[in-house]
Order: sequence, then C-alpha cells, then structure tokens
Amino acid sequence: MVRTRPLKVALLGCGVVGSQVARLMTTHADDLAARIGAPVELAGVAVRRPAKARGHVDPELITTDATGLVTRGDIDVVVELIGGIEPARTLINAAFESGASVVTANKALLAKDGPALYAAAEKQAADLYFEASVAGAIPLLRPLRESLAGDTVNRVLGIVNGTTNFILDRMESSGAGYGEALAEATALGYAEADPSADVEGFDAAAKAAILAGIAFHTRVGLDDVHREGITEITAADVASARQMGCTVKLLAICERAGDGRSVTARVHPAMIPLSHPLANVREAYNAVFVEAESAGQLMFYGPGAGGVPTASAVLGDLVAACRNRLNGGLGPGESAYAQLPVSPMGEVVTRYHISLDVVDKPGVLAQCAMVFADHGVSIDTVRQTGKDGEAQLVVVTHRATDAALGATVEALRRLDTVHGVASTMRVEGE
Amino acid sequence: MVRTRPLKVALLGCGVVGSQVARLMTTHADDLAARIGAPVELAGVAVRRPAKARGHVDPELITTDATGLVTRGDIDVVVELIGGIEPARTLINAAFESGASVVTANKALLAKDGPALYAAAEKQAADLYFEASVAGAIPLLRPLRESLAGDTVNRVLGIVNGTTNFILDRMESSGAGYGEALAEATALGYAEADPSADVEGFDAAAKAAILAGIAFHTRVGLDDVHREGITEITAADVASARQMGCTVKLLAICERAGDGRSVTARVHPAMIPLSHPLANVREAYNAVFVEAESAGQLMFYGPGAGGVPTASAVLGDLVAACRNRLNGGLGPGESAYAQLPVSPMGEVVTRYHISLDVVDKPGVLAQCAMVFADHGVSIDTVRQTGKDGEAQLVVVTHRATDAALGATVEALRRLDTVHGVASTMRVEGE
Repeated sequence: MVRTRPLKVALLGCGVVGSQVARLMTTHADDLAARIGAPVELAGVAVRRPAKARGHVDPELITTDATGLVTRGDIDVVVELIGGIEPARTLINAAFESGASVVTANKALLAKDGPALYAAAEKQAADLYFEASVAGAIPLLRPLRESLAGDTVNRVLGIVNGTTNFILDRMESSGAGYGEALAEATALGYAEADPSADVEGFDAAAKAAILAGIAFHTRVGLDDVHREGITEITAADVASARQMGCTVKLLAICERAGDGRSVTARVHPAMIPLSHPLANVREAYNAVFVEAESAGQLMFYGPGAGGVPTASAVLGDLVAACRNRLNGGLGPGESAYAQLPVSPMGEVVTRYHISLDVVDKPGVLAQCAMVFADHGVSIDTVRQTGKDGEAQLVVVTHRATDAALGATVEALRRLDTVHGVASTMRVEGE
Repeated sequence: MVRTRPLKVALLGCGVVGSQVARLMTTHADDLAARIGAPVELAGVAVRRPAKARGHVDPELITTDATGLVTRGDIDVVVELIGGIEPARTLINAAFESGASVVTANKALLAKDGPALYAAAEKQAADLYFEASVAGAIPLLRPLRESLAGDTVNRVLGIVNGTTNFILDRMESSGAGYGEALAEATALGYAEADPSADVEGFDAAAKAAILAGIAFHTRVGLDDVHREGITEITAADVASARQMGCTVKLLAICERAGDGRSVTARVHPAMIPLSHPLANVREAYNAVFVEAESAGQLMFYGPGAGGVPTASAVLGDLVAACRNRLNGGLGPGESAYAQLPVSPMGEVVTRYHISLDVVDKPGVLAQCAMVFADHGVSIDTVRQTGKDGEAQLVVVTHRATDAALGATVEALRRLDTVHGVASTMRVEGE
C-alpha cells in the first residue's frame, strides 16, 4: 500500500525541538510511512550554525540557505521550528508560494500574523498546521478545530506556560519568594536566561490569542489579549491564597460573553480553589479546560513543553499534512466567520481578592463596605485581623466587571483610613 | 464562501442522541454552514416508530424505510445512531455502496466488524468517523488517530463507562452495597432497565477493543479483550481499598508489552490510589490517560455519555465528513499495519490485593509467604489482623504476570490454614 516516491520534508531549525523531529523521522521512518501511505524523507535541514554537531542528521542535508531549501521546488512539507517573526514569516510565505504545506510551532508568528498566513495557505491550497504552538504535546488545537467543529465553545481556561507554572508551584510548595523560585527554574532549565517572554506573560498571551481565534471563529490578535505576568507575585500572596483554600496560577482565559455577542481573552495570575483540577497541575505541566455548549466541560492535560513532547505534536501535524498531499485533501483553514468583537479587560466579569492595610478603629469596615457598594460590587467574604492599632482587611468580592472592581480598589486607596492596598488578585475557577 | 447546493445528511435513529443531532443541525445551521463551507441539510430521518412526536424534526422527513433513505442516491453523509449489530451494519454498508460517508456512535459494531467497515469505506473512497463511540463528548479517537499519528502509544488507561463509574462512586461516597448503588443509578437514569451491558463490562470492552486497535495500529477484536464487570464488588472491597488509600474503578487498559512485540486489552475493576487523577473522576464522567513514547502522559476528561454531549462528538465528525466531501479529501482509514499479536490476560503484568481469612496461629504467614515465593510473586506489603482465633491477612504484591498471581491465589486457597480468599483485586495506576 506504500507508494514508492517519498514525500519530501524541509526542516527549518534544528534546536531543541527540530533535532528531535529529525531523530524521530529517522528512527520511526517505517511507522510514519505505514501511517501516511508513503515514505517520508528529510530532504534538507536549514540551520544558522552548520558546524554544530547534529547526531541524527546526515551532514549532507545541512544547509544555511533556508530560502534555497524551501523554494527548490520538490518540497512537500516545510517544518518551521526557527521561532520568532523573521525570517520565519518570509520562509513560510516562500514555502506556500512554492506549493508546500507548512507545519510550525511558532506561536508568536501565528498570534501576530495568523490571518495572513492562513490566506497564503488557502491561496495555494496548502495546509497550515500548528498544534505544537500551544500546550506542547497536548492535542488541543485539533480537538478545538475539528472535534468541536459542530459545537459552540464558550470558554477556554488553562495553564499554558510551563515555566511560570513551575515557578508558582515552587512558591506554593516551598514558601519561596518569586526571585528564589525563578533562580531554581533557571538552574533546572525550565526558564531561559532572559525569562521575560514567560514570566511577563507574553508567551501565554500569544497562545491565548491563538486559542481564542480558533475557539470563537474570530480574529483575535496579540493586542486584544490583556496580559499580566507573575513578577509581582509575592510569597505573601501565595500564603494568602492558601489561607483561602486556593493556589495561585497564571491562567489564560478566553470567554464568550453571556449574550454571545463578544469575546474576551486575557492572561493573568489568579487564585483558584485547591479543589479545582487546575490547582493540581504541577511543575511544567499544562492543562486546559474547554467548556462547550453541547460537550460540556472537557479537560486536556499533559507536558506543555520540551523537545521530545513538542516533536510529537509536530510529527502528528506532519503526518496529517503528508496524508493530505497524498489524498488531495486539505486540513481546516482559517475560520473567522463569526467576526465577534473582542471586548477590553474592563468588561470582563471576574472576582477580586483584596488585602487592605487599614486603621484599626470602629467604622473602618463600614466605610470600606460603602466604597464597594458605591461601585456596585457586592462582597462575598470579609476577614479582619488587627494588631498594634493596624488592621488588615481581606475582602473577596462577588462577580463584577473588572472595570468596577478596579475602580473600587482605586477608591479604597484614596480613603484616609486605608494605609495601603497590600495586594489584589483575581479569583477564578469557581 | 458558502456554496449553494447543500450537503445532504440522512439520520438513522432519532432517540436520545439522534434527536439532539437533529436539533443542533437546525439551531446551529448557520454555524455549521460557515464551518463546512456549504449548508448542510437533514434530508431524512429513519425511525422505527414514526408516530412518536419528535419536536425538532419536520414530520415530512420521517420515514420507516431506512434502506430507501440510505440508497436514494443523493445522500452525502449517513449518521447511524441505531446501535447494535443489525440492521445498523447492513445500512452502513448500503451507505458506502451508495457513495455516502458514514458517521456512527456504534461501539458494538465497530468492535465486532471494524475491519470490514473500514474496507467498505476505503473501497468507495468514503469516510468512516466514530468519535462518539468511545467516551462520549471527549475528543479521544481523533487525537489518537491524528494528533498522535507520529508517536508510539504505549498505554491507554481509563474510565470509559459512566454507569459503572456512577455506581462505584456511590459505593465509595456512601458506603452502599452494589445492589443499592445500582438501584440509585437506575432511578436517576444512569443505568438501563437491563444494566448488564454496562455492569458486566461489555460496553467498556467494546471501547477497549476500539481504543487498542487505533492506539496500536493493530486489529483487536472484542474476543481479544479480557472482561470482568463490577457485579461482584462489595462494600467490603471498597472499604478495604479505602484503608489502602485507594478507590475502586472499572478500568479499560490497553498496553503494549515491554518489548513492543505484543499488546493486551482488558477491562476489570481495580484499586487505584486516591492521589491518581482517575480516582477523582466522579459520577458518570469519563477520563482516559494516554502514555506515548514522545508525548509522555496525556489525559482527556469530560462527559462520557448523554444525548447532548454525544451529539457534539457526532456533529464534529459530521463537519469533518462534509468538509472532505467538499474538498475531495479523506479522513484516516484503518491503520492495522503493525499486526501485533494480542496476548491473553495471563501475560498481563499487574499487581494483586488479596484478602485471606486464615487460622490465627504462628507460622501461617510464613506458610503463605512461601506460596507467593514458589510462584515467583514478591510481596509488597502484608497486614495481619486477628480476633477470636481467626485472622485476616491482607497482601499486596509487587508486579507479576496475571497467570502467576492467579495461580498463587489458587494455591493459597488449597492451604489447610487458609479458610477462604475473601477477595482479590488488581491494583493499577502506580
């Protein structure tokens, strides 16, 4: 059943993920051929530093001329694992123009220029697959794009960045501060030398944009995603969450508004109850909840990063793209027909956990409560602890818009009896 | 972008799932058209009792002539939701012969006659999709068939029957016996009047056969699946599991042998640690772990049954089949190239929890321990409790073949000092 002419694959980038893709294409060549229906051959590997030893790759396949490789005319599928915007974007467009399909793990590029890439693929009747761009090895984009294609997704909520989850998990389990936990993550290879893409939430925000776009059949750009990182999270925040029976996680949350007419996408730390399944996602694992109108609540869990797991996702896409080359089919293209507006963060409905340092005298609680009432925010619980003329007021609100909650905090800050707002954090997952 | 000629769908069966599929096809017609690229039209609904009121279906579409509907020549996709072997099998084959693609939720038929159905589909270059046959709304078959197509799956382990999970969950949470928990499940609609397909493990075994076949690219029939139900589980078993920090679940387990040269598939109750994520799968939910060589450990969780969730899976498949009709593509067909032998239960490596009623005198433990040693089974823990000249010995073994473990239990039973084997249960998930 296996035809003789092999499908030709060009690999762009041979780093942590690319080298594993090359290895697996070699060691699992027979399995891949049987599953695709034709042998699949690594036709070339474009790298920046050709001198670097690459154990699994025939040195003759190595080239520094990525453009030449992509445009040589006989490539069936280009696997782009360079990352970043350029030269990845130019190379992917060149691949489509040469008639090749593309498999990529490039979340930054997808989040920034997804629509243009989809259009380029569609124009050439080529495939664009990118499962590996979100949540590593976890099958998530294919279930959203295909399995749930007959359903209405209302919410996607999850942990999509392993580095920050590792840091928060360490802070939770050891009581360490942010700096200490980051240092440990760096030492263990979970955080990069410059960790800002992870800890500032840029990585998660790109993934949220991709997820929201697919889930809601709507274009969601990186600028549409509200983003807060974890650099301001303190050991006290984590301890305070624990007192409430919660833990702190960096969440990506994409939601359809109650009336179905708009959507939101955001990345920020939040307290979630310890009883919530996401609370038990440890170390660098990822997990994503999907709530759909008919399917109900689904969860997907697994390794969110790492060379080998990510290579699994890339190879799954490669098999799909190759099958389509053989059968004349085409994977799902962009589906942005719903064209829903993306609302700003102020319109998101959430809950706040607020710690206030206040003067310890009668009437302060009443005064603060009045501020919440004035902003239409109702209070779920208040806990008051006092010592030495100072008191701490910990308030958890009911659900309200982020704008109302934020305005409440600003108004509290202006009260004479409030010395300071020790922390505010959103509460999710209830 | 939406073409005018609609794709025509024939629905066979309009029960719990079928009526929801019909409803969603109507209420979500615009979304489906946008996602497929063409409108999709319900061309006919074949039922046994046409007089029964069906709110969402135009009465003119109702027919009792399923064969006539399937073979009328203009049907693009047949959605088979009758269940059982006949007439479903004949109708599906007629659908393929008429050039239609097929979407089905029929696990019994897939487990029994999957290879013949795949062959019939392939002969006509038609699609056969069946996501809804296993784990209801949870995207599981598509991730296994497509997302993990470039990986090597070593293990699939999960809760795939909601009825038995509901019963075991009730036994666990309330201390109820099997009969009482079954009665509650029946009263709440979680168990059918004749619950044997669920409680005897037939339903889970069919799903295990389907999962093993897809996971290992090998034909696995219903007869290849070792099957034990939950009817013999007692409140004492559940209490005993709890004492060990475990709970009892009915598991479907498909494994590749350590040397990769054979596979096994089985369904039986087992103790799993309370710390295992599957231990927290409550009520009628399903959850499935997948362990793959590159991807690592993945988990999929969600509603495993119910009309609306199952309809979500059916519609996802319907969209895929329709897209393929439009684009000229083809979904994945049977992939049984690996042709691995399916080993019998005796070769499965597992652990036993054994409760023995023994004479309370010195030397009995030594005598029993010798029996384990004689069968090459090593002991993990022993707990001995005595009263009134009778003692109970609770032994948990290390890993050994099921044949060795079973032979050990038989030999223990024959000892004069052993009055009886109170219970034996496998221990998994560690």
